[in-house]
Amino acid sequence: MRTITLLTDFGTGDYYVGAIKGTLLRLAPEARIVDLSHDLPPGDVETAAFVLAAAAPAFPAGTVHLAVVDPGVGSARHRLVLSAHGQRFVAPDNGLLTHLLAAGTVHAVARDDLDLPAPGETFHGRDRFAPVAAALAGGLDPATLGPEITDALRLPIPAPRCEGEVAIGRVAHIDRFGNLVTDLPSGWLPAGRAFTLTCGDLVVVRRARWYEEIPAGEPAAVPGSLGTLELSLRDDSLAARSGALRGTEVRLRLG
Amino acid sequence: MRTITLLTDFGTGDYYVGAIKGTLLRLAPEARIVDLSHDLPPGDVETAAFVLAAAAPAFPAGTVHLAVVDPGVGSARHRLVLSAHGQRFVAPDNGLLTHLLAAGTVHAVARDDLDLPAPGETFHGRDRFAPVAAALAGGLDPATLGPEITDALRLPIPAPRCEGEVAIGRVAHIDRFGNLVTDLPSGWLPAGRAFTLTCGDLVVVRRARWYEEIPAGEPAAVPGSLGTLELSLRDDSLAARSGALRGTEVRLRLG
Amino acid sequence: MRTITLLTDFGTGDYYVGAIKGTLLRLAPEARIVDLSHDLPPGDVETAAFVLAAAAPAFPAGTVHLAVVDPGVGSARHRLVLSAHGQRFVAPDNGLLTHLLAAGTVHAVARDDLDLPAPGETFHGRDRFAPVAAALAGGLDPATLGPEITDALRLPIPAPRCEGEVAIGRVAHIDRFGNLVTDLPSGWLPAGRAFTLTCGDLVVVRRARWYEEIPAGEPAAVPGSLGTLELSLRDDSLAARSGALRGTEVRLRLG
Repeated sequence: MRTITLLTDFGTGDYYVGAIKGTLLRLAPEARIVDLSHDLPPGDVETAAFVLAAAAPAFPAGTVHLAVVDPGVGSARHRLVLSAHGQRFVAPDNGLLTHLLAAGTVHAVARDDLDLPAPGETFHGRDRFAPVAAALAGGLDPATLGPEITDALRLPIPAPRCEGEVAIGRVAHIDRFGNLVTDLPSGWLPAGRAFTLTCGDLVVVRRARWYEEIPAGEPAAVPGSLGTLELSLRDDSLAARSGALRGTEVRLRLG
Repeated sequence: MRTITLLTDFGTGDYYVGAIKGTLLRLAPEARIVDLSHDLPPGDVETAAFVLAAAAPAFPAGTVHLAVVDPGVGSARHRLVLSAHGQRFVAPDNGLLTHLLAAGTVHAVARDDLDLPAPGETFHGRDRFAPVAAALAGGLDPATLGPEITDALRLPIPAPRCEGEVAIGRVAHIDRFGNLVTDLPSGWLPAGRAFTLTCGDLVVVRRARWYEEIPAGEPAAVPGSLGTLELSLRDDSLAARSGALRGTEVRLRLG
Repeated sequence: MRTITLLTDFGTGDYYVGAIKGTLLRLAPEARIVDLSHDLPPGDVETAAFVLAAAAPAFPAGTVHLAVVDPGVGSARHRLVLSAHGQRFVAPDNGLLTHLLAAGTVHAVARDDLDLPAPGETFHGRDRFAPVAAALAGGLDPATLGPEITDALRLPIPAPRCEGEVAIGRVAHIDRFGNLVTDLPSGWLPAGRAFTLTCGDLVVVRRARWYEEIPAGEPAAVPGSLGTLELSLRDDSLAARSGALRGTEVRLRLG
């Protein structure tokens, strides 16, 4: 049984997610449908890109990921199918696949024979993306959908870098608990080395291996679940306390 | 494998949804359970009726939809089973099936032998509705549940109409993005015709085919995903900006 | 097909739930995954314990419940497997299993060969708990995981009791609708007897069998869906109106 995951910004209080699920089950009756998230901030392609790249590696080969955060629905933006890690990713060409592009091959969907009859151009998730995902779950070769492309849109997210003795990155994500997930590889902070890490007005000089090890009221750097450093408070939201936002620069100096 | 969808106002932070799912899996081990939504506003039967009617057509024949928004739980209101479009709909007789009634046949559940032993009368979703849905997923003939009825409760929602040169409808739904989904068929606004559409204090004279086509800051009428006109802003919530509510009258004048 | 349920405080707007689901499907491809809830208040072990114990009885024998509300992730707290009611419960040793412990046998996981390679110690839900749940869904004997223990952590929740003519309990849970779910067995309020029930400043002298039977604006005691009394308002949140909190003492005097 093939798995199709769903990642959208449609929320869970409306009909949109149900309509996509129904369409998938109608077109791919044997598929297993798994919700990744529907509660992404509306139109927030960067969060979608982060969540998709973070969750996908856990899934088995053969999984089809359908990701629809698509403020440009209806416009000329393409639909993409990325083949990477033995999985397929279906998404609009708006940067949603940014973190995964380097790992695979992208086809732009040029066929319209899979499209469903639709009363308008506002819900391609149901009418145009879901049929592609269902077909892929049924084994369709992505190369039959359209040409391979190499210029899929990438979000302009800088990679973390070193300038002299300072490593410079950014807050890549803020999670539900208010942890600031940075893009600095945890390995850049060697065990036992003193350091100063700044993030906006926030200064972090402590490290911890897990949240409960953090002294009450003091921020710490923690090797996180994606291989990068997190900045965290114990039992509290560092995002709320520090005012740091996604994108805030993070500077790490060993010393 | 039969699919049973769930639509409730139980929220996703409590035990209610889990208990219904467990009951369904206990009674119909082969069924596939699909969440439509549990985040409907508590007790909001009209939103439930809208979401159910909007999502159901996407599902394959044979699907059983279990919809429990039931502020009258425990009272004398009946449980209904609607057979329409090759699907079954299980819901309380409180208007939840309003938009679907015309398409099918309704039976009122008169049997109590499917009811589960229960410590009280407050959770018929688990104790009385779920067993009916499970039995239907197993192939039970709805006619064996009770008499066919023709007086199921309908919400007093007026149909859109024309008065002289003006089409009059209402805001049928406000979606997550703040789009005002009207009940005016998109076809009532012919391509190329100038128009004035009013909705409370809001005046709309522009049209767009999709959201990104809307000029920044100006509301537009967009042919929506259910075959009716939506009133929308680009990248913003028109509901929040306009103060329009569900039920607000909408008047469309071609000119 | 074995069912694995998920109960977490990870929210539905992040990658955590998706990563756990992917891991389960990778390790137990035939399992059926069912969401109980991911919207528990962050770190709220008591609510998790309540929801798990309330939902689990509805599920069939053989179900594996994976419950991860784990503010102590990474620390020395054990992972537990409880076998009760023909089901398995996988959870951290932090009180999450409090209400279920008396019904079964607990093993503490001592093996680490099931652990997944992990970049840090902050996401045991994915890296350490999910593999155990997947193995149990595949039929693994819990006794092979580690020693049976009898000192699993219990939350210090007092049992309801009688002092002379007064029954004393507490608000065990506040549900989405603002009902105050007490731990007083419904049977302690015999049919037809007058009574006075106090809960903080709230005084309840009415009873009702279901919510719609409650007179508008007056609180009533209702036999709830878990066999205990609920205190409720009709079409309104008694929690919001009364200021009662989880843990507020409840006193019932028959008269």
